[in-house]
Amino acid sequence: MKEFFNVETIEAVLAHAASFSPVDTEMVPLAECLGRVLAEDVFSDVDIPDFNRSTMDGYAVRAASTFGASEANPAYLNVCGQIKMGERPSFTVHPGEAAKIATGGMLPDGADSVIMVEHTDRLDDTTIEAYRSVAPGQHVIEKGEDIRRSEPALIQGIRIRPQEAGLLAACGKTEIEVFRRPMVGIISTGDEVVPVDRVPGDGQIRDINTHSLSGQVLEAGGVPMVFGIVKDDRDDLEEKCRRALQFTDMVMISGGSSVGARDYTVEVLDELPDTGILVHGISISPGKPTILARSGGKAFWGLPGHAVSAMVIFTVVVRPFLDRICGLRQAVRRLPIQAVLRRNLASAQGRVDYVRVRLVEENGTLLAEPILGKSGLIHTMVKADGLIAIGMNKEGLYEGETVNVRLL
Amino acid sequence: MKEFFNVETIEAVLAHAASFSPVDTEMVPLAECLGRVLAEDVFSDVDIPDFNRSTMDGYAVRAASTFGASEANPAYLNVCGQIKMGERPSFTVHPGEAAKIATGGMLPDGADSVIMVEHTDRLDDTTIEAYRSVAPGQHVIEKGEDIRRSEPALIQGIRIRPQEAGLLAACGKTEIEVFRRPMVGIISTGDEVVPVDRVPGDGQIRDINTHSLSGQVLEAGGVPMVFGIVKDDRDDLEEKCRRALQFTDMVMISGGSSVGARDYTVEVLDELPDTGILVHGISISPGKPTILARSGGKAFWGLPGHAVSAMVIFTVVVRPFLDRICGLRQAVRRLPIQAVLRRNLASAQGRVDYVRVRLVEENGTLLAEPILGKSGLIHTMVKADGLIAIGMNKEGLYEGETVNVRLL
Repeated sequence: MKEFFNVETIEAVLAHAASFSPVDTEMVPLAECLGRVLAEDVFSDVDIPDFNRSTMDGYAVRAASTFGASEANPAYLNVCGQIKMGERPSFTVHPGEAAKIATGGMLPDGADSVIMVEHTDRLDDTTIEAYRSVAPGQHVIEKGEDIRRSEPALIQGIRIRPQEAGLLAACGKTEIEVFRRPMVGIISTGDEVVPVDRVPGDGQIRDINTHSLSGQVLEAGGVPMVFGIVKDDRDDLEEKCRRALQFTDMVMISGGSSVGARDYTVEVLDELPDTGILVHGISISPGKPTILARSGGKAFWGLPGHAVSAMVIFTVVVRPFLDRICGLRQAVRRLPIQAVLRRNLASAQGRVDYVRVRLVEENGTLLAEPILGKSGLIHTMVKADGLIAIGMNKEGLYEGETVNVRLL
Repeated sequence: MKEFFNVETIEAVLAHAASFSPVDTEMVPLAECLGRVLAEDVFSDVDIPDFNRSTMDGYAVRAASTFGASEANPAYLNVCGQIKMGERPSFTVHPGEAAKIATGGMLPDGADSVIMVEHTDRLDDTTIEAYRSVAPGQHVIEKGEDIRRSEPALIQGIRIRPQEAGLLAACGKTEIEVFRRPMVGIISTGDEVVPVDRVPGDGQIRDINTHSLSGQVLEAGGVPMVFGIVKDDRDDLEEKCRRALQFTDMVMISGGSSVGARDYTVEVLDELPDTGILVHGISISPGKPTILARSGGKAFWGLPGHAVSAMVIFTVVVRPFLDRICGLRQAVRRLPIQAVLRRNLASAQGRVDYVRVRLVEENGTLLAEPILGKSGLIHTMVKADGLIAIGMNKEGLYEGETVNVRLL
């Protein structure tokens, strides 16, 4: 019996993402914060730096003492001391005086700038010539110039990159509140599917989706929780779905949208408490027969069984939901690579077509070469560098057009 | 005393990368292979799929039985059986016959194609009408069409993405030989630098580089090994360097290229056995006073002390060496994002300038907005989305020029 979908656009599906809540938070040590999503606004306990700091090796001076100095007409300055790293200088720099300072040193009272050692000559133990004039503040990072303790250094909801880890260190954060990594339950279905450690018999194939989807979950900052393979058995499916919903923050069942298993999946969803189907069919290819349900506040996905289709749907549709559940404050900007399409591509109107492409450089131009092939062939994803979209109202793209490539 | 560098171009420095060797290999379970570098050529133990497989729900037929069929003139076919998923059909499809098959099912002997259920009508228990003709091979993945067992499915030296994890599963690989994650020793130097858990006193600043560089090492697939902060003490520095070289595959010392510490670093390198300085100064800004040495076959880096400079040098110079040590077969293609420069940028000739930029979208155009600020300010890296390079022979870039942005 043929089933008719009430197909929705990708945009309409993505609009549901905001209705799911981020997971709760936990504390992690600084060394483990990379890639995690920050869950607190961060303030430094001190100004950074907490003193006027030299950015050069040279002499701390009052800028006015150097005004007018040149190669032809150097300023003569008295060396009044030497600054030790990591200590407050005990003396003051007066007009006409200079104090030896290294990069990172603390400016003494009275000094407002640093003249680079390359622009000076030492005449004797107590006198230098300065060949340039410096401006007030030159070669100095002022107290609080990097981060002021009164202002937030970081706002919650961002993914922590190496530079944010550095900034957290500067702020004295040895422990950081981050969103917990969401657990994502993964279920494969199909009587023909066998686990990786089995040699497939006649008509059997190994489970690919559990492993490609686990990889995509890990890349997105989640933790995959594998529930194994469900044969076409309604009771087993219901029990696995119940367990997955109990122990994880989001569930993905793959193959569950092909005709036989889809019937079971819909049946099971109909029986689970506090569960409703939000989407049943998306105007996208590959991956049209995708299901999205909400069960007890959690997203539950019925993904296509074909390996390529499941990965494309994860990339384009599921990932923004997972980003939201991860605690990311804003939709993640996916900046595309621009390339020139290498051949004509036909497409059906009324749906968005995602085409796998390989990127090839020729004479300095980046070309996108479509990889055609059935959506059941995982090797086409291995050959692919990215995906291009052909919009709803387009009948195709022409060779030579510039396309936006979303890297895989 | 001023030191003169024998400054080399970035290209000349990067050419040294090929002279370092990848680390050794280890076995990891399939579930842990994501992001690792494959160290073996992978063959499947079976053809994938190992049988002719339907890609649709419908009927397995001999294509010739449908030739000429249309809505007006359907072909009548005898239903000779139904294919069970995951089993070899026990019957043969003869001319004029059709066997019910679901997506993923195994084609019976005699059948060479599948007609979609949507293009048929069931007349009674044993007869269907087919409204379309199908070509031989249509809606079928042929035995070995995804992967042939006689050909390598994957070649060593690539980083494993989710799709490669899926392919490894299909090939029956429960354990995979990958390159060990290289250990990277990280040493910070400076009398003014204190650890994160200390409140900086007068003239002191917390250690940023250990944490930003650790993050960069993790992102690159390495394992940071932190050796802490060395005060400006030659013996302590030597001991830490010896230990780091002993226990890791590459060493980065930051701050060790500023005048004081640089002298010590060079002294220490001169005394270590089987050690030679390869590079002392790169025509790049920020980060000119970078040191690269080889010690017992391992790369040893003296990175600048300023937080931004150290991160830029890691991104542009160190990372390709680490990629090589990780076992990656080819130089990693870093595909840039194109954007339009938002203001004029001046630059000195004779060096490559790296400028931090923020990416802003305005009226559908991606703009690169330079973030100016001293290279000692970590918050400028936090604000930045990427880096743009201004070439050796350029005096600058103009507002409105298209620039290539390397994401951070």
